[in-house]
Amino acid sequence: MKQVDSRARAVIERCQLLAHCTMEPGFTTRTFLSDPMKEVHRLLSSWMQDAGMGVSLDAVGNLRGCYAGAAGSGRRLLIGSHLDTVRRAGVYDGILGVVLGVALVEALNGRRLGFQIEVVGFSEEEGLRFGIPFIGSRALIGQLDEATLNTTDANGIRVVDAIRGFGLDPSRISDAQVSADAMGYLEIHIEQGPVLENLGLQLGVVEAIAGQSRFRFTFRGQTNHAGTTPMHLRRDALAGAAEWVREVERRAQSTDALVATVGSLEVEPGASNIVPGMVRATLDVRHADDSVRKSAVQYLQQSAQTIADARQLSVSCEQHLDQPAVAMDSLFTQALESAVIRAGHRVHRMTSGAGHDAMIVARRMPAAMLFLRSPAGISHDAAENVFEEDVAAALVAASYFLEEIECQHA
Amino acid sequence: MKQVDSRARAVIERCQLLAHCTMEPGFTTRTFLSDPMKEVHRLLSSWMQDAGMGVSLDAVGNLRGCYAGAAGSGRRLLIGSHLDTVRRAGVYDGILGVVLGVALVEALNGRRLGFQIEVVGFSEEEGLRFGIPFIGSRALIGQLDEATLNTTDANGIRVVDAIRGFGLDPSRISDAQVSADAMGYLEIHIEQGPVLENLGLQLGVVEAIAGQSRFRFTFRGQTNHAGTTPMHLRRDALAGAAEWVREVERRAQSTDALVATVGSLEVEPGASNIVPGMVRATLDVRHADDSVRKSAVQYLQQSAQTIADARQLSVSCEQHLDQPAVAMDSLFTQALESAVIRAGHRVHRMTSGAGHDAMIVARRMPAAMLFLRSPAGISHDAAENVFEEDVAAALVAASYFLEEIECQHA
Repeated sequence: MKQVDSRARAVIERCQLLAHCTMEPGFTTRTFLSDPMKEVHRLLSSWMQDAGMGVSLDAVGNLRGCYAGAAGSGRRLLIGSHLDTVRRAGVYDGILGVVLGVALVEALNGRRLGFQIEVVGFSEEEGLRFGIPFIGSRALIGQLDEATLNTTDANGIRVVDAIRGFGLDPSRISDAQVSADAMGYLEIHIEQGPVLENLGLQLGVVEAIAGQSRFRFTFRGQTNHAGTTPMHLRRDALAGAAEWVREVERRAQSTDALVATVGSLEVEPGASNIVPGMVRATLDVRHADDSVRKSAVQYLQQSAQTIADARQLSVSCEQHLDQPAVAMDSLFTQALESAVIRAGHRVHRMTSGAGHDAMIVARRMPAAMLFLRSPAGISHDAAENVFEEDVAAALVAASYFLEEIECQHA
Repeated sequence: MKQVDSRARAVIERCQLLAHCTMEPGFTTRTFLSDPMKEVHRLLSSWMQDAGMGVSLDAVGNLRGCYAGAAGSGRRLLIGSHLDTVRRAGVYDGILGVVLGVALVEALNGRRLGFQIEVVGFSEEEGLRFGIPFIGSRALIGQLDEATLNTTDANGIRVVDAIRGFGLDPSRISDAQVSADAMGYLEIHIEQGPVLENLGLQLGVVEAIAGQSRFRFTFRGQTNHAGTTPMHLRRDALAGAAEWVREVERRAQSTDALVATVGSLEVEPGASNIVPGMVRATLDVRHADDSVRKSAVQYLQQSAQTIADARQLSVSCEQHLDQPAVAMDSLFTQALESAVIRAGHRVHRMTSGAGHDAMIVARRMPAAMLFLRSPAGISHDAAENVFEEDVAAALVAASYFLEEIECQHA
């Protein structure tokens, strides 16, 4: 295990080094095709090359390292995750999966498998710059649409302009499509939640990525003076919204594995001495079973209306996202389970509540995901961490996974 | 009544004209000693002079018009309200009481009473510029403290600098104090609430100005990913705050004449896909009986703590205001009641839930307040209005009030 431990340490050190590639000194903020992405490409490319991989950058900025298989091995396994970050991110979200992909190839020590390995660092997953996630993986499966390419960032720069500005050629985007020899995709990612830690487990096997609904609700009442308006003559939009926020929580608490969140709530006018006339609240609902999610959404829309009616408020809602759940491939996931068991761990199958590139790539090929425990469940924060022993465990399990796949496809 | 009606119309037209004196074209926004206040002074001064009043501007910018009494009348009745506005205010809040004061003197047609009348336009009541209300009335009663004078506005300008900048001399502030011959104060103001309209009344007699408590509560939980954190592992600051907002409403609804408001609620980080880690909420509690108010505040603090404990949140609160209720003078209020009855109206005694200059002036002399119905209860908004018939009613009642006072002090 000594060698695995030193490789795990090296993986962590590489992630920490890459965290310095940032748009905002003192924090890690690295959006799609931002300047610091160039240094990320330079470092990863050199590690990939040292591991014997041929490196290229596709037209949307996905970094792709190819490690040839044994003679005659026509198929290709993709291993990857994303290179971009949220604002003021942690060190491991996304990039860990890419660095682990390189480390897995390094661990082969030049040994050739019955398939090629392509390590992919996706250029964009978080949606921070353009408000649209998965630009990298959508290009890889040939589903990057014209509308996305013309979307502008906060500075009015379109995706195509950003591509050109980075020195890439948007007319070559179709070349980013993965070749027909792709046999599957493995993504290793931190859990970004507290489940594994709470179960005392290091690794988790993702069986599905939850479907998501996102809405914006607007409750409208009447702005009034907080001193001069008796309680029975108020139409307080916040009091109504607060009643509904509790209902959102209650419904999720009473439905197995459902999560429902009001993450943003804006009060207008928002002065201490004015009865709120309007509240805008977001609703985020996720479940691995789309019918469970949809029935919860329907209930919460109805509940908002009932609360509003009783209080003489009006309520409206707009849907911003309706993303179906995505199942991981059963054979690939079985292979991953076997690998986890061989590595000496109890298998915990789980739903990923967060979206991942695997969700997009799964449209085109079998996909599997391995989760590493997130200390304190923290992610999207500078305090995000991984344990070295969990990185070592992931390396061992993923190595066994390569062997399992080799057997499956022998 | 024809003459009263035309006077009422003139009062409204004057208020509408003064609403154009604004820092923000298209809206009425006029803070303490702002430039547009000069035009307000110019117009009011000319009307005061035409009505036979001697006009002066004191060192904090209170505009004061004195109408002499009959020979030998040594005492002085103050009639006034404020000249400043909230941001994007209506036409009548404050200024109506000053314009009505001038109209009352005009209606005397040069007749002299057994006392002098001083119409006061207070320079500052709303607290918009310096976050401190009642600068004008506090100077009038000699209670403007050094700390207030050194408070800075958003541009770092101190109150004393603002005074100098307006061409006034802060060393003369003590001269703003009302003379010892002051016998009382009458303030006429729009209700700024829906009570009179709901009762079908034009006028209301204020018997007390409610005491106020203002707090800022902070609920702290744990920021978490909305997709990856199961409900039972969350410490959602917003879900806790929402439960408390409902408690605030319930307590006020179940306590006679209590009003309690959460007017502002800020959620951090405030993203749709993040479980809120912190919520800051304001609490505003008002009642004419200080013990009722304090017991409600205590209950709501305890309730916040109970909710936080049950959810593993922490909660803290800071008090920003603890202002006792202020009773109006009983003899003055009786005189006002008699006047209202003589004017043909049913008397409705009420608590003012809003603060007014009368609250400050009452520390120094007997004070009374007459409310005019607020259509739809709207105030602090461009839609704020008064009915001409109510202005006419107020003019008649206030004229009778002058007679009542003359009898009382004869």
